[in-house]
Amino acid sequence: MSRGLLLVISGPSGAGKGTVCEAYKKHCQNHVWNSVSMTTREPRAGEVHGESYFFVSKEEFLKRIEEDAFLEYAEVYGNYYGTPRREVEEKLAEGFDVILEIDIQGALNVQDNTSEGIFIFILPPSMNELKKRIIGRGSETPESLLTRFKSAYNEINYVSKYNYAITNHTVEQAYSDLMCIVRAERCRVTRVTNEILTLKEEEL
Amino acid sequence: MSRGLLLVISGPSGAGKGTVCEAYKKHCQNHVWNSVSMTTREPRAGEVHGESYFFVSKEEFLKRIEEDAFLEYAEVYGNYYGTPRREVEEKLAEGFDVILEIDIQGALNVQDNTSEGIFIFILPPSMNELKKRIIGRGSETPESLLTRFKSAYNEINYVSKYNYAITNHTVEQAYSDLMCIVRAERCRVTRVTNEILTLKEEEL
Repeated sequence: MSRGLLLVISGPSGAGKGTVCEAYKKHCQNHVWNSVSMTTREPRAGEVHGESYFFVSKEEFLKRIEEDAFLEYAEVYGNYYGTPRREVEEKLAEGFDVILEIDIQGALNVQDNTSEGIFIFILPPSMNELKKRIIGRGSETPESLLTRFKSAYNEINYVSKYNYAITNHTVEQAYSDLMCIVRAERCRVTRVTNEILTLKEEEL
Repeated sequence: MSRGLLLVISGPSGAGKGTVCEAYKKHCQNHVWNSVSMTTREPRAGEVHGESYFFVSKEEFLKRIEEDAFLEYAEVYGNYYGTPRREVEEKLAEGFDVILEIDIQGALNVQDNTSEGIFIFILPPSMNELKKRIIGRGSETPESLLTRFKSAYNEINYVSKYNYAITNHTVEQAYSDLMCIVRAERCRVTRVTNEILTLKEEEL
């Protein structure tokens, strides 16, 4: 079994990152593992420990930071969020592709903390379409809408830190692009070294 | 129209490079251009000038070398073979993907002569399968068979100089891998810069 791929996926809110990742996980559930983050914030109604997040105390989280147990972590409004390193490492070694659906700061931290990782940015087809999608959710006030737009604009500046950018015109097309990126990355010469060695060792 | 991709494809004889490229060109004929080499050797029966090769005199070829008109060229048993640079450049600028189906030495020369190029190596599923395929052609003597094997073994050492390796289990799978590599390469952040700038300039 060859090592899995670490897929780090970001994109501004409204670009459709979550939907694309869901479609991908659904179609590839046998060999994809979705990383579950750890947090110190309180569980909300309906959230399940180990599925939505691993909910831990602040003391527990700080202890793990000391132990270098996170691939990345951040403090947001007094709460900590992080990606446990060991689980990711284990799943990759077992041959699972691991999806980290994280924000840009998290992705940049992953880049600093590991030499592997395929960094994929999901873009909206246009800023107008992004606007429509956010308004369509119906959960925004005019102020929070403006904040989201400004933030989306700023986030797009970071696309250059990623390897790939997928423009999400439709879920099907964006999902197919993602599938192709994974398939192409599996063909990378650096990843097929074992196959090539086996070929060379074959007796004729 | 965004710039086309320069696809440089090599692989040992018997790996199925030609068949995979043919399948690809057939399915993508509207946006793929197959580079035609130039040579000083005599045309064989059935070969068409401008399709099989551009047949030119040695004087003409040497003049073009002086003019730096080749992306790569080589002398093999007294005959010259080369890839005209201008046609490749024009087709890429027009948005066509250009396929160069060339040997390893040619591919390495292309690497020296241009900063673009996606280098893809086609591998046989096993050396035994390679043997079967070459014998299946029925055109080899035991001596030339041995020469081909030795050469295939040596060629496989160069795979590390390429970006991707496709193992040709079946034409359909190898062709799909190639399609995915092209699709993934189109999503490379370095290639979608214009799209991102357009997005950022959009008025809301």
